[in-house]
Amino acid sequence: MRRNARKEFEMTEKKRVAFQGEVGAYSEEAIYQFFGDLVETVPCKTLTDVFMTVEKGHVDLGLVPVENSLEGSIVRTYDLFLESNLKICGETILRVVHCLISNPSTDLPSVKTVYSHPQALGQSRKYLEALALEAIASYDTAGSVKMIKEKKLLDSAAIAGERAAKFYGMKILAKGIETNHNNYTRFFIIGEKDSEATGHDKTSIAFSAKHAPGALFHALQIFAVRQINLAKIESRPIINKPWEYNFYLDLEGHRSDENVKEALNALRESSTFSKILGSYPRAKEYALRNK
Amino acid sequence: MRRNARKEFEMTEKKRVAFQGEVGAYSEEAIYQFFGDLVETVPCKTLTDVFMTVEKGHVDLGLVPVENSLEGSIVRTYDLFLESNLKICGETILRVVHCLISNPSTDLPSVKTVYSHPQALGQSRKYLEALALEAIASYDTAGSVKMIKEKKLLDSAAIAGERAAKFYGMKILAKGIETNHNNYTRFFIIGEKDSEATGHDKTSIAFSAKHAPGALFHALQIFAVRQINLAKIESRPIINKPWEYNFYLDLEGHRSDENVKEALNALRESSTFSKILGSYPRAKEYALRNK
Repeated sequence: MRRNARKEFEMTEKKRVAFQGEVGAYSEEAIYQFFGDLVETVPCKTLTDVFMTVEKGHVDLGLVPVENSLEGSIVRTYDLFLESNLKICGETILRVVHCLISNPSTDLPSVKTVYSHPQALGQSRKYLEALALEAIASYDTAGSVKMIKEKKLLDSAAIAGERAAKFYGMKILAKGIETNHNNYTRFFIIGEKDSEATGHDKTSIAFSAKHAPGALFHALQIFAVRQINLAKIESRPIINKPWEYNFYLDLEGHRSDENVKEALNALRESSTFSKILGSYPRAKEYALRNK
Repeated sequence: MRRNARKEFEMTEKKRVAFQGEVGAYSEEAIYQFFGDLVETVPCKTLTDVFMTVEKGHVDLGLVPVENSLEGSIVRTYDLFLESNLKICGETILRVVHCLISNPSTDLPSVKTVYSHPQALGQSRKYLEALALEAIASYDTAGSVKMIKEKKLLDSAAIAGERAAKFYGMKILAKGIETNHNNYTRFFIIGEKDSEATGHDKTSIAFSAKHAPGALFHALQIFAVRQINLAKIESRPIINKPWEYNFYLDLEGHRSDENVKEALNALRESSTFSKILGSYPRAKEYALRNK
């Protein structure tokens, strides 16, 4: 299955792939997990910038986070798809392993303060409390590693991924310090086109439904009668549109599969708005996690 | 409707209500919006602490965030309900208005750096960029106001709610600096019991369904055939449980309404797991937003 998933991205020359964050961020780790080393990563400041730089053709593809097993959906990513013509052409699921990272000469007992993004600090709270380390918030996980390196903070450490430590030539004092190891982030690979069918695909769609009893039910009926599995569903109220909701839905199958094609046509006819965000090979990690 | 919603919480003496964050946090603002001034607020370090302090009876009620219109669901809150016997007895929706807050002697032109939680900084990015202010991440919105006061940082400001400025005796340099004004956070009030029916209620439930084609569809059919409106739906994969999903669902009506009671019984019989998180009067702001 993985071989199929990769086929789309077989590369004779290095692809340029944009992501949000500093070099060494978990998003960059996800890019290498998906593409291997034959890739050039391009850091961007915001998720909007990732979409824009792909749209303008400055890079070949982008990678954006869509949900985390502990924190939930990254709804800003979904919202960006509504304003963009970019398509989802792949997905990858990264196991988030937080590391305690310091300057090379620092040892664990000399660490007093720990810098990272509040989410990473929160996810490592038990470890930090057990060692009575002071947590200090920063903008970014990998950016914290860069900062303690540049400022030569020898009594400090940062929480980030392994790749950040390697990139900045820093030392990993501890690995896997997150309280809950069931910490996975799912990413979409985005580009101008989605992927060809591989037989193990998912399709992501967005649609709107009126808030009448059973409106969502009737939309889901379209998929149920055609034996199409749903892998994710999420509703969001549309602000300023009374009683109307946006739904984000992942289903199993490719938009070119006969039953999926029929269902999407039926959905288009029955909903106030619908958009196919793309069909793509199901992530390898997804299969592993679920077997 | 509001009068009905309040009846449950009519108080002869001040109720003690726990929340997560520092004094002046948006959660605390939500408590005052819901209860008025006849309340004593109790800050807690984590969401888990809010649940625990209510469970132990150290406070009367708690208030926890469940979703934000821009950032999505706070899934950790939902997860805590699965491990707890506490019930939802109310909801309130707060319009999040970010303020730029400084020491009283500081004027806008002298501000160089701005402290706040990365989310608040991100939501105010356009304002900060227009004024070329440096953003520095911190753990907490209200906590940043406290910090610039204690450290007497006269060339700095913090982003937080109006209440934080008032509590710490600080100056509001600008109000409503968030890029997107459609910024609402929805909170649940939690306690030992849920609320009596008022005729304008919502009920929140969690249930699990197998990942078979149509499993979710059949669950939703239970509500559709009984003319019950769904106000929110969200799926989350259960890690380590192959092909099984948790669903969080808000429906319109009270668990004591005849059609809701029937539907919840039917759901219990047909799903691997189901739990009523509580019935509560629909938030006033919800009605306003949607009319």
